Amino acid sequence: MHDIALIGAGRIGKIHAANIAANPRLRLSRVVDPFADAAAALAAEHGATVSSVEEALADPAIRGVVVASSTDTHLDYSLAAAEAGKAVFCEKPLDQDLARASKAAERLEAIGAKLFLAFNRRFDPNFASLQARLAGGEVGTLETLHIISHDPSPPPIEYVRVSGGIFKDMVIHDFDMARWLLGEEVTEVFASSSVLIDPAIGEAGDADTAKTILRTASGRLCVISSSRRSGYGYDQRIEAFGSKGMIRAQNQLESTVETWGENGSAGDKLQNFFLDRYAVAYAREAAHFADVIDGKAAPLIGYTDGVRALALAEAAAKSAASGELVRL
Amino acid sequence: MHDIALIGAGRIGKIHAANIAANPRLRLSRVVDPFADAAAALAAEHGATVSSVEEALADPAIRGVVVASSTDTHLDYSLAAAEAGKAVFCEKPLDQDLARASKAAERLEAIGAKLFLAFNRRFDPNFASLQARLAGGEVGTLETLHIISHDPSPPPIEYVRVSGGIFKDMVIHDFDMARWLLGEEVTEVFASSSVLIDPAIGEAGDADTAKTILRTASGRLCVISSSRRSGYGYDQRIEAFGSKGMIRAQNQLESTVETWGENGSAGDKLQNFFLDRYAVAYAREAAHFADVIDGKAAPLIGYTDGVRALALAEAAAKSAASGELVRL
Amino acid sequence: MHDIALIGAGRIGKIHAANIAANPRLRLSRVVDPFADAAAALAAEHGATVSSVEEALADPAIRGVVVASSTDTHLDYSLAAAEAGKAVFCEKPLDQDLARASKAAERLEAIGAKLFLAFNRRFDPNFASLQARLAGGEVGTLETLHIISHDPSPPPIEYVRVSGGIFKDMVIHDFDMARWLLGEEVTEVFASSSVLIDPAIGEAGDADTAKTILRTASGRLCVISSSRRSGYGYDQRIEAFGSKGMIRAQNQLESTVETWGENGSAGDKLQNFFLDRYAVAYAREAAHFADVIDGKAAPLIGYTDGVRALALAEAAAKSAASGELVRL
Amino acid sequence: MHDIALIGAGRIGKIHAANIAANPRLRLSRVVDPFADAAAALAAEHGATVSSVEEALADPAIRGVVVASSTDTHLDYSLAAAEAGKAVFCEKPLDQDLARASKAAERLEAIGAKLFLAFNRRFDPNFASLQARLAGGEVGTLETLHIISHDPSPPPIEYVRVSGGIFKDMVIHDFDMARWLLGEEVTEVFASSSVLIDPAIGEAGDADTAKTILRTASGRLCVISSSRRSGYGYDQRIEAFGSKGMIRAQNQLESTVETWGENGSAGDKLQNFFLDRYAVAYAREAAHFADVIDGKAAPLIGYTDGVRALALAEAAAKSAASGELVRL
Repeated sequence: MHDIALIGAGRIGKIHAANIAANPRLRLSRVVDPFADAAAALAAEHGATVSSVEEALADPAIRGVVVASSTDTHLDYSLAAAEAGKAVFCEKPLDQDLARASKAAERLEAIGAKLFLAFNRRFDPNFASLQARLAGGEVGTLETLHIISHDPSPPPIEYVRVSGGIFKDMVIHDFDMARWLLGEEVTEVFASSSVLIDPAIGEAGDADTAKTILRTASGRLCVISSSRRSGYGYDQRIEAFGSKGMIRAQNQLESTVETWGENGSAGDKLQNFFLDRYAVAYAREAAHFADVIDGKAAPLIGYTDGVRALALAEAAAKSAASGELVRL
Repeated sequence: MHDIALIGAGRIGKIHAANIAANPRLRLSRVVDPFADAAAALAAEHGATVSSVEEALADPAIRGVVVASSTDTHLDYSLAAAEAGKAVFCEKPLDQDLARASKAAERLEAIGAKLFLAFNRRFDPNFASLQARLAGGEVGTLETLHIISHDPSPPPIEYVRVSGGIFKDMVIHDFDMARWLLGEEVTEVFASSSVLIDPAIGEAGDADTAKTILRTASGRLCVISSSRRSGYGYDQRIEAFGSKGMIRAQNQLESTVETWGENGSAGDKLQNFFLDRYAVAYAREAAHFADVIDGKAAPLIGYTDGVRALALAEAAAKSAASGELVRL
Repeated sequence: MHDIALIGAGRIGKIHAANIAANPRLRLSRVVDPFADAAAALAAEHGATVSSVEEALADPAIRGVVVASSTDTHLDYSLAAAEAGKAVFCEKPLDQDLARASKAAERLEAIGAKLFLAFNRRFDPNFASLQARLAGGEVGTLETLHIISHDPSPPPIEYVRVSGGIFKDMVIHDFDMARWLLGEEVTEVFASSSVLIDPAIGEAGDADTAKTILRTASGRLCVISSSRRSGYGYDQRIEAFGSKGMIRAQNQLESTVETWGENGSAGDKLQNFFLDRYAVAYAREAAHFADVIDGKAAPLIGYTDGVRALALAEAAAKSAASGELVRL
Repeated sequence: MHDIALIGAGRIGKIHAANIAANPRLRLSRVVDPFADAAAALAAEHGATVSSVEEALADPAIRGVVVASSTDTHLDYSLAAAEAGKAVFCEKPLDQDLARASKAAERLEAIGAKLFLAFNRRFDPNFASLQARLAGGEVGTLETLHIISHDPSPPPIEYVRVSGGIFKDMVIHDFDMARWLLGEEVTEVFASSSVLIDPAIGEAGDADTAKTILRTASGRLCVISSSRRSGYGYDQRIEAFGSKGMIRAQNQLESTVETWGENGSAGDKLQNFFLDRYAVAYAREAAHFADVIDGKAAPLIGYTDGVRALALAEAAAKSAASGELVRL
């Protein structure tokens, strides 16, 4: 049973807290949050104590630190925790600044940090099964990839302003997924983005809709479709085209119920709230972190992956702004 | 190129005429119908001549006769055509009277008649594929069978009155299908029927809804679900449960188009008109008849099959009326 | 927070223990089991104490008792708990003996027992949604119903011998489901059963495959398809045919992943283990029990439902044995 | 009944001949082909006469000319037929040279030609239904579009060499489809193409795999996925994303049969041969041509559409070669 400190008692922090509490190999011991009430409530729910970051990192019983604080603090807390010899579970993204993140990666490398960067979608049973089948050669050699990732509705405009832009904030998930599935590094990025949903997003200097093409050295191609608002829920699909066939992961529905009438059939809604859609993925992240602490597994996703996904996001943003292909 | 005479220029006769005309091995030569205008129009459309039954049967060029006249004349025309040495393509059912049909079967046997009884559903590509897979052992040994056959809407009450009842008129298709797929003769029949759709059907002495259980000597079980009006179109499905799995034939839709919105997905309608739904089956019947004339195939369905399906229909009607299991 | 005593620390007892522990309104306080080790382990896992039935019922803090012991003790423990003034959560079935169960129901009625009989499938989100839509008139008036309930593989033959037979042990779930959905009491039962899977089941005096037709006073019909071994997993489907359409609940798959190749597509397996397939249903049962204790809800399923489902099971067994329709 | 001359008795010519023959408003009168045997056989099959182009165009009875000859002759025959006052049904593409096609379009405009350019996919019932629903606002305003068009297997390398390249030969269908569905002209094209299937295709100066992004003035985006060999058949799908939902047309399967076993379900193959997959579309083209001759309809697709699709194909080829966005 490893003692864990959680930094960040917000929406995603609560999810991680619950999954740590439910995991038989982990115990939530300390909760850190600048909002004392939030920290106290979450600590009480799971029998943990409220703590400062310093106390948590100084406590030799703490084996792992979950960084689920605001994005701009991910890197500092992760570095501090790693310097203190803790295993680190860092919420995505590692950072929004490529230069900063690259420099931090050098330091993390130097100190041999055990850092797990939590891109939740790799832990989704559907996408994980797709990856395993692809890697197992079920459809021959991968040639191209389609990733659809459309949100149910846009975030508040205040969030959009500080989000880092659609590529760093939202498509970053898909850049990581693409890297995982393509099996080769991306060498070229082209993106075209539009403001089709809300002019306020455009006024904030961002786009709400985008299509991105990634290309690898051997010529594999990946298309990512991004939308801040789908009109039909949380569309999360992948199709992988290989030399001998195609594997796809479809959406999860709220139920298997269908109604058939004179005009045809009606199926149920997509599972729309991301915390529901990826509930299993979040629980598997906690289990993976336990493996990392135990030394049973290296982090499936590390800081280098975070840096590379960020580099793709920057390249895509640059391409969308300039209309030019960006070579990496 | 075999010359064919068609008796009956009504709705189903027109279908057979078109399929004969389109088949490179058959030529529609003579059309017979008590309604002279109908006969003339259909003959003109396909370059055939209007004829009497006698002329058609006396013509040595005529190799095959398609009997698509009213049900009560099926048996007499089929017998006459067989006596004249013609191959016979007889629309279902052979007859509505079991004793009469049995007696006719003896005569057909005695004269070595080549009679193809056209239960169209055996020629549907979906059901034919299901049968082939089942016979090929794709799911091990067949154990049980579910047949769903629900019509879009009930026939006119005038038709119901002379139809012979739901079991002889409608479920007869499914009795033939069950016999084909079960691979063993049925030994017990239980049926429960209701009037749920239109009281007028009950007043006419018939039911509009039924569930029937068939059982074979080895204990295989088949359920047939029957409805004169489904409320969602022409539901034609089969599920076959074997020792190693299940094979099913689903419904055909009007298109593959789906609309997804906030409340879920909407698929297209079932293909509802039976002449559309079974268009391919009817064309395949004509091709099979050409094979029968050529001696390349024995009739896939013969008069004996007609008699046995009729026996099941009578048993089911008796069971539904009495509430008792009928043993054959 | 209501204190709960659990009688039975076996497979299903563990599920209920976990769901009680996870429910914010319930606390698992006492665990009873004749196997001291099992009781101790389960109690330790959830911070409860090992207890005798007597102690548990004598404890005024205990508000509810979950009876998850062996089937032959369900009735006695439920009665004792009810007599002690506790709300009762009784695993299905209430009992295997109709006379005994009926007599007990009279006593439960007399003392105003709050007894929730846990037929888990009513709490499955798919079936619950189907029921709600049906009750809401989404497809008009219900006419007929198809319930498919095929197990992945048969239980050990030792279990079969004491199971009470396929109808009381397995189909009882479907009788309850049928009663819930039909909206009318069943007046006639016909069943046909076979031994197709394992002769040993036949030698034990039981069948492994059955088709049952239920009929209500107004002529609604229900078919139940039962198999102890499907060959393709845990098949749990319902189709409800109404005057204006059809509602169906399909199976749950292990993932949404499909592979497409030259020979067509391959979809994932059915969710086969019943504790996985009905995991959400079990959690909802605990929440419903909390509502019952709080007086916010009457038991969705009570002892009367248990008696009636048992009566249908007895009627079906009698029909299958005699080949006769059984009128209730 | 309009007399039609057909130029070209090859594979696609035979399809058009059969559909003209089957259409009650059209009669196949003359067949032209440099291969005398091919012309004679096709003419004989449909009761037409073998003819030269000059004879056909000089015959005042001929109302329409179907140009189904080799691609490099499409434009000349179409112009000649139009000059002779005939309605023209021209197989796609209009030509492979943009300058030539543009110049011809001016002449066709000047003489008021009735030219129907037969991009068959617009007549597919699935895609036509998708277009109608989209135009009807079923999912609000269109935002983005995904077109997947993967062939079962590459054409012979000899064909590849003279094909004009993947964009003009294959993706041209999708450029037309995109234009039809986008509802706005395309202003920017970016394409990335690879040789992943057969190095010989690369040696012939062509690519076998491509992803193309189209953009309109208002920012609508379209992705086209192209492959000469899918490994799983003829994949022909479209997804249209609107402000209120998504409409998609799925693939057509060979049958509705599924087999379920221990490892999951197996569905049937895609309908792989393009003449089968688009059989209905080709028949509808003939009917549309009859409408055009009758003056009941303007050509759904005209020479201008042909020129614009060709312009997109040239732009895509240029973009793929240069790595640069091409603005139109």
